[in-house]
Amino acid sequence: MKKYLVLNGPNLNLLGKREPDVYGKNSLETLTAQMKKVAEDINVSLDFFQSNHEGDLIDWLHSAEEKNYEGIIFNPGAFTHYSYAIRDAISSITVPVVEVHISNVHAREEFRHQSVTAPVSAGQIVGFGLFGYELALKALVEHVKGREA
Amino acid sequence: MKKYLVLNGPNLNLLGKREPDVYGKNSLETLTAQMKKVAEDINVSLDFFQSNHEGDLIDWLHSAEEKNYEGIIFNPGAFTHYSYAIRDAISSITVPVVEVHISNVHAREEFRHQSVTAPVSAGQIVGFGLFGYELALKALVEHVKGREA
Amino acid sequence: MKKYLVLNGPNLNLLGKREPDVYGKNSLETLTAQMKKVAEDINVSLDFFQSNHEGDLIDWLHSAEEKNYEGIIFNPGAFTHYSYAIRDAISSITVPVVEVHISNVHAREEFRHQSVTAPVSAGQIVGFGLFGYELALKALVEHVKGREA
Amino acid sequence: MKKYLVLNGPNLNLLGKREPDVYGKNSLETLTAQMKKVAEDINVSLDFFQSNHEGDLIDWLHSAEEKNYEGIIFNPGAFTHYSYAIRDAISSITVPVVEVHISNVHAREEFRHQSVTAPVSAGQIVGFGLFGYELALKALVEHVKGREA
Amino acid sequence: MKKYLVLNGPNLNLLGKREPDVYGKNSLETLTAQMKKVAEDINVSLDFFQSNHEGDLIDWLHSAEEKNYEGIIFNPGAFTHYSYAIRDAISSITVPVVEVHISNVHAREEFRHQSVTAPVSAGQIVGFGLFGYELALKALVEHVKGREA
Amino acid sequence: MKKYLVLNGPNLNLLGKREPDVYGKNSLETLTAQMKKVAEDINVSLDFFQSNHEGDLIDWLHSAEEKNYEGIIFNPGAFTHYSYAIRDAISSITVPVVEVHISNVHAREEFRHQSVTAPVSAGQIVGFGLFGYELALKALVEHVKGREA
Amino acid sequence: MKKYLVLNGPNLNLLGKREPDVYGKNSLETLTAQMKKVAEDINVSLDFFQSNHEGDLIDWLHSAEEKNYEGIIFNPGAFTHYSYAIRDAISSITVPVVEVHISNVHAREEFRHQSVTAPVSAGQIVGFGLFGYELALKALVEHVKGREA
Amino acid sequence: MKKYLVLNGPNLNLLGKREPDVYGKNSLETLTAQMKKVAEDINVSLDFFQSNHEGDLIDWLHSAEEKNYEGIIFNPGAFTHYSYAIRDAISSITVPVVEVHISNVHAREEFRHQSVTAPVSAGQIVGFGLFGYELALKALVEHVKGREA
Amino acid sequence: MKKYLVLNGPNLNLLGKREPDVYGKNSLETLTAQMKKVAEDINVSLDFFQSNHEGDLIDWLHSAEEKNYEGIIFNPGAFTHYSYAIRDAISSITVPVVEVHISNVHAREEFRHQSVTAPVSAGQIVGFGLFGYELALKALVEHVKGREA
Amino acid sequence: MKKYLVLNGPNLNLLGKREPDVYGKNSLETLTAQMKKVAEDINVSLDFFQSNHEGDLIDWLHSAEEKNYEGIIFNPGAFTHYSYAIRDAISSITVPVVEVHISNVHAREEFRHQSVTAPVSAGQIVGFGLFGYELALKALVEHVKGREA
Amino acid sequence: MKKYLVLNGPNLNLLGKREPDVYGKNSLETLTAQMKKVAEDINVSLDFFQSNHEGDLIDWLHSAEEKNYEGIIFNPGAFTHYSYAIRDAISSITVPVVEVHISNVHAREEFRHQSVTAPVSAGQIVGFGLFGYELALKALVEHVKGREA
Amino acid sequence: MKKYLVLNGPNLNLLGKREPDVYGKNSLETLTAQMKKVAEDINVSLDFFQSNHEGDLIDWLHSAEEKNYEGIIFNPGAFTHYSYAIRDAISSITVPVVEVHISNVHAREEFRHQSVTAPVSAGQIVGFGLFGYELALKALVEHVKGREA
Repeated sequence: MKKYLVLNGPNLNLLGKREPDVYGKNSLETLTAQMKKVAEDINVSLDFFQSNHEGDLIDWLHSAEEKNYEGIIFNPGAFTHYSYAIRDAISSITVPVVEVHISNVHAREEFRHQSVTAPVSAGQIVGFGLFGYELALKALVEHVKGREA
Repeated sequence: MKKYLVLNGPNLNLLGKREPDVYGKNSLETLTAQMKKVAEDINVSLDFFQSNHEGDLIDWLHSAEEKNYEGIIFNPGAFTHYSYAIRDAISSITVPVVEVHISNVHAREEFRHQSVTAPVSAGQIVGFGLFGYELALKALVEHVKGREA
Repeated sequence: MKKYLVLNGPNLNLLGKREPDVYGKNSLETLTAQMKKVAEDINVSLDFFQSNHEGDLIDWLHSAEEKNYEGIIFNPGAFTHYSYAIRDAISSITVPVVEVHISNVHAREEFRHQSVTAPVSAGQIVGFGLFGYELALKALVEHVKGREA
Repeated sequence: MKKYLVLNGPNLNLLGKREPDVYGKNSLETLTAQMKKVAEDINVSLDFFQSNHEGDLIDWLHSAEEKNYEGIIFNPGAFTHYSYAIRDAISSITVPVVEVHISNVHAREEFRHQSVTAPVSAGQIVGFGLFGYELALKALVEHVKGREA
Repeated sequence: MKKYLVLNGPNLNLLGKREPDVYGKNSLETLTAQMKKVAEDINVSLDFFQSNHEGDLIDWLHSAEEKNYEGIIFNPGAFTHYSYAIRDAISSITVPVVEVHISNVHAREEFRHQSVTAPVSAGQIVGFGLFGYELALKALVEHVKGREA
Repeated sequence: MKKYLVLNGPNLNLLGKREPDVYGKNSLETLTAQMKKVAEDINVSLDFFQSNHEGDLIDWLHSAEEKNYEGIIFNPGAFTHYSYAIRDAISSITVPVVEVHISNVHAREEFRHQSVTAPVSAGQIVGFGLFGYELALKALVEHVKGREA
Repeated sequence: MKKYLVLNGPNLNLLGKREPDVYGKNSLETLTAQMKKVAEDINVSLDFFQSNHEGDLIDWLHSAEEKNYEGIIFNPGAFTHYSYAIRDAISSITVPVVEVHISNVHAREEFRHQSVTAPVSAGQIVGFGLFGYELALKALVEHVKGREA
Repeated sequence: MKKYLVLNGPNLNLLGKREPDVYGKNSLETLTAQMKKVAEDINVSLDFFQSNHEGDLIDWLHSAEEKNYEGIIFNPGAFTHYSYAIRDAISSITVPVVEVHISNVHAREEFRHQSVTAPVSAGQIVGFGLFGYELALKALVEHVKGREA
Repeated sequence: MKKYLVLNGPNLNLLGKREPDVYGKNSLETLTAQMKKVAEDINVSLDFFQSNHEGDLIDWLHSAEEKNYEGIIFNPGAFTHYSYAIRDAISSITVPVVEVHISNVHAREEFRHQSVTAPVSAGQIVGFGLFGYELALKALVEHVKGREA
Repeated sequence: MKKYLVLNGPNLNLLGKREPDVYGKNSLETLTAQMKKVAEDINVSLDFFQSNHEGDLIDWLHSAEEKNYEGIIFNPGAFTHYSYAIRDAISSITVPVVEVHISNVHAREEFRHQSVTAPVSAGQIVGFGLFGYELALKALVEHVKGREA
Repeated sequence: MKKYLVLNGPNLNLLGKREPDVYGKNSLETLTAQMKKVAEDINVSLDFFQSNHEGDLIDWLHSAEEKNYEGIIFNPGAFTHYSYAIRDAISSITVPVVEVHISNVHAREEFRHQSVTAPVSAGQIVGFGLFGYELALKALVEHVKGREA
Repeated sequence: MKKYLVLNGPNLNLLGKREPDVYGKNSLETLTAQMKKVAEDINVSLDFFQSNHEGDLIDWLHSAEEKNYEGIIFNPGAFTHYSYAIRDAISSITVPVVEVHISNVHAREEFRHQSVTAPVSAGQIVGFGLFGYELALKALVEHVKGREA
């Protein structure tokens, strides 16, 4: 069974508690449960990791090949806007990454309009709440299929 | 049966012929066919419109309520980057719009990194080729469901 | 009887429906009726045209001399902020143009603070709702009187 | 009888003498006389004040409520472009302010294109010479009527 | 006989009438006549199209292959400075485009110094009045010759 | 008994009336009373001055040495953001100045994020309402103590 | 007894050794001792944490509610100027944060003038050496009192 | 005997005391005495005025014609860098103004490199201490001579 | 016989050797030979000069009148982008200058998009390889003819 | 024997695997081996540390004095471009740091042209692959020698 | 007899011929004659040098000490705005330089408002025509006197 | 024996005399002597050239192939920051160039942080005084070895 990683960056551990008007009322546990169900439906397996530490996220990105992930669904949180180290980590590996944002970052503060990680990702999904992770998984599966074709 | 609009902006009539390295080898007809099949699967109906004319796109956006569209999947092409008139058209209507881009605009020229339409759209899907339209439809259906809840 | 043109740009066909908190609850028809009454009072006649198409607005500006308009009351909508083509159309003709905006554009998004059409217009009236069109007509009549003196 | 204030900022005491190509040949006295006649016609009374001192203009703005002005017609002169203190004075009071400029500031030097006071004013009238003050008075009367409705 | 297109953008229908100090006193008809004579001399045929509508210009650019144009002489008027949709239309086709400007845009307003269409054109000719179109035709003929070599 | 000056800039005379959501409901008189009590507690005396006139504030800053102030608690109001003349006044004197802002200027408009006076002040206290003046007094007392040590 | 957290960011472990001209000669231990004494005086208790790791600081901010801190005195060090992740952590929690800087950051390099964390903090205290922490504690106590009122 | 005005802006009353490393050790009185001697030598008379109030400086500039000044030697102090009101005052009068700065403003902070008053002055003299006023007087005398020729 | 100057700036001596993908495979000698033939055809004579020295290019521009050149075909190379001294040299003389660039500078690095010399030249020809010099000569001949008419 | 530290930042653990066209085919192990040999030749000893964690790099920089390093050869990876925390760590210690980059950062993306760490380092070596570390070691040895002289 | 150098940069050899509306009708010879007379009056001797070559100007600046110049009156022409090499030459020598500009550069194109040489010069004199050189000489003599005191 | 060129740009002839705090006390002669010794040690020969003339430096760069230099050690002085002509010269030749700066340009004025020549050089060495030239030579030898492999 093909394996994918769901990687969440800083402050996403507070999902459901943190600014619920912006990020919704569901917790990271809910997301995990929802995504597991989706994965089951399309017959893939998922790993989950969240960290507030830039270095940990880089380490996990680096481990992708060794752990045989087909692709990574990645919400880099605020690192999206300045972490060139994470950007470099993404381009250091060959496993494809899809960037997800829960809120519509383009409708918020100016600094959230720029993504330093998107240019080296396969694609980006913005503004659909937790459902965006499901879309990202489907996009990744399709993306990998396209590469194998 | 609920109805959605797939709206394509300038130069998308040349899909398949236009810079195939960037936009792929499938034509607008292929997209239409693919999307019709997806729509059938999830039991919604789709209308399609493409134009190179900013004004026509605005007129179609305006017609959304009268024509009872539940939502609009919109690839504004290059208008994304400067058409404040289209932006205003989107915020003039209550029907939700999802912005789609075939290529990863963040990995291309600087001017493609800014979207003047995204801040008033429900969300944005970038970089997954024609498959992005399918994701957008699913996102819209979910989005509408969320609003009705 | 002297003739003036009231020219409205993109999305103004939705007046009354579109973001009523910003643009008020009166429709374009109400505006037309109000302005006709004002025109009658000061003994001038008015033509009305609205379009979401940049090219149509340019065509109408060009026709001003042939149609013997004394002046043009123009709300270019969002084209105000980027249409150098409309700007050039205004400076291509000798009929004076007064720019009107219903809302106070200076109190809204940054991009609405710049007008590319104002530098080639006779003047600009901003923020007085539909009443601004009445002021603009009076300003034009006075402006023309000044030029004839 | 309702009372309004006509407030003029720096260098407007030199009207008629100062760069007549830009500001016209009529003096501040002419403006006062013209406006008094207009006021009489619409049955309101007017006070007039001009100062080259930023602090004096702020003091007069502050006095608006105590002196029962219905509204203020304000030409802040060059303070328009940098006096955040005057901007704050306008937002400190509830009496509405209409900004007037004699010349078309958008057709002049770059620095005149920005108004720091317009975002907190009710509206702005630009480019119609002294007649702009008359328009502003009418706009204010209408504005106040709208607020009372 | 090889066929070329002379494509003129917004406000060029007013040539001869519009700001003659900037654009000269000859009309679009004169240009057509002059260019026909030049074409005859070098044994090619020319089609002519002018529009104030961005969408029409895009449609004509798209039609270039079907209509067997060897190349396009294009004066995009003010669209030069902001129409990324036209830029994309030029890069969507394989027929070469030469950009022409009648006036020396570099000696005019700041916004005229940037061309968003030049980077995807074969070359650019600026400042030689209507004669620039003749130079552009010769440049195109030479350019095509070079590609065939 | 050591003497300090509490200096307030433009619009602070309206404290309590002016935008109470931003600046609170207490008046300048309340501030004076509160601060007098604090001063008594720590056995220093206070002078108070408020002006909407940039020049008056400069004159008072200049008088600091002659009047034997140990330090100045200064809320320059909107002058904070552009008055290089006040900045120069602060660096012209040797009496230390502490800058205070009632509201959190960093959470408001962009132009309020820059302080031209802070670089030449001893320190800055932002966002604690009227209590900020009390903190500033304590900071000044400590600062002076540090310099004497 | 109410509990507060004193949180120090990168390089503050070197206090006393690090650039003593800028940061003074007292160590982090001295700060701790001083602050404990102040806390005792006003009958609150303090926890202390310092880290050079962005992720650790985020983790501690997140723990604030669970640990029942009334407020946080936070010197984010250089993270102040770019860590949007820490900014998001601050707005993810409801415990109020006061930002402290030992040196007058406005009198130093350009990059130190911008704080990405201040807009989501309760307030900011800048330039008073270690005494600033004491002021911050008092500001927090007052701030909390104000919220309870 | 021809009459000239020596006009000094904010903080120049502190000459000799204020930052002597930058502005030297001589007072405004010394400047007055020195200039009077120079004036005597070349047989002209001088008036002197200094103010920290922008409005006073504008008033004095305005009075120049009535008081029959041949020219004005003006050190606007920090107003140089932002007072568009003073700039307008200079262009409102026909009496020529020469701008003087004691220190080399180009070798100091970035904000001192821009002069908003220089573009409307006859010329500018920078960096020669009090001797610059003497040069300015001679430049003015020569300038006036040139205009009379 | 009328005389024209072909002036080439820095690095153009390496034509044919230097980055042939950008500048083509023909040498400066080939250019000279080609241009001489063109000149013969239209019965004018040409002088040629190339230098890597900014000062030499200025000297040659200055000599234009004395040497009776009707016009100058000028490729300033990289000086195009920063040499205000050459710009001033062009505006110091009355002989018209046409700017030529071999490559399409607009399709290359950002810094090549700005020309400081174009605003003071008669016109500009960009992107047609060596053939651009021939076009420039014809443009100059026409330009001179226009001036004599 | 004198001791130096070779400190490598994020993603450098992937040397040899990561984008080999940019960073070469040699691994971190090869670098270690090469450097050890060089160290032996010049009779110094080397420690090696790599981390993807900003905080770890800061901790190691801090430990430099305690561990008696004479100097540090530091490749901060992408932290070079934004980590003001690392910059502060470098200026917090007295042990000299030499910045090394394997690739020519100036020939890559815009964001890589800025180094926030270089201004507080002793020097910088860019573009010589792994050999750059050897040069850096020699530079450090010389630098230290210079300081002891 | 003390010796000074009058150094003129590019295009100043054309004085009198070049744009006489901007630079006046007097030639460089006239300037030389005028300055010699002035020098005689104050009993100093003058050398003169003009070049269009940046390198020559640097060489002459370098020679200043060897040739025993007391100071240099320097009009760097357009090099003022970009020649950091000349700037470095000025700071490489200890002989003081006074920068002179014939026209009021602040009233001309934007690029002329910046001087890269002024920050390292003793002072700057702008806008007084050829008389500015005389003022500069006097300023230099005074400046040198000040340094010897 | 392989031959290398040591090329020094403007003001480097004054080494030892020029701002010794920045550039050290050793002269260009010392550098030559030191480098000759290093060359001898590694058995290569060196040529030396210094000029204050941009054109001369370009000419020497151009001569590199003809003179059989293996590589060039180049300190372009202030030309580093603006000479696109020198940049083009470097990319016009195939001989590799290593850029050297004596001082740490990143720790000095803003304008020195940008290098227009580094992007087309093999690498850059900054901040190690004259020793940097020795490092550059070694880097070049290694670089050439790498290319031959």
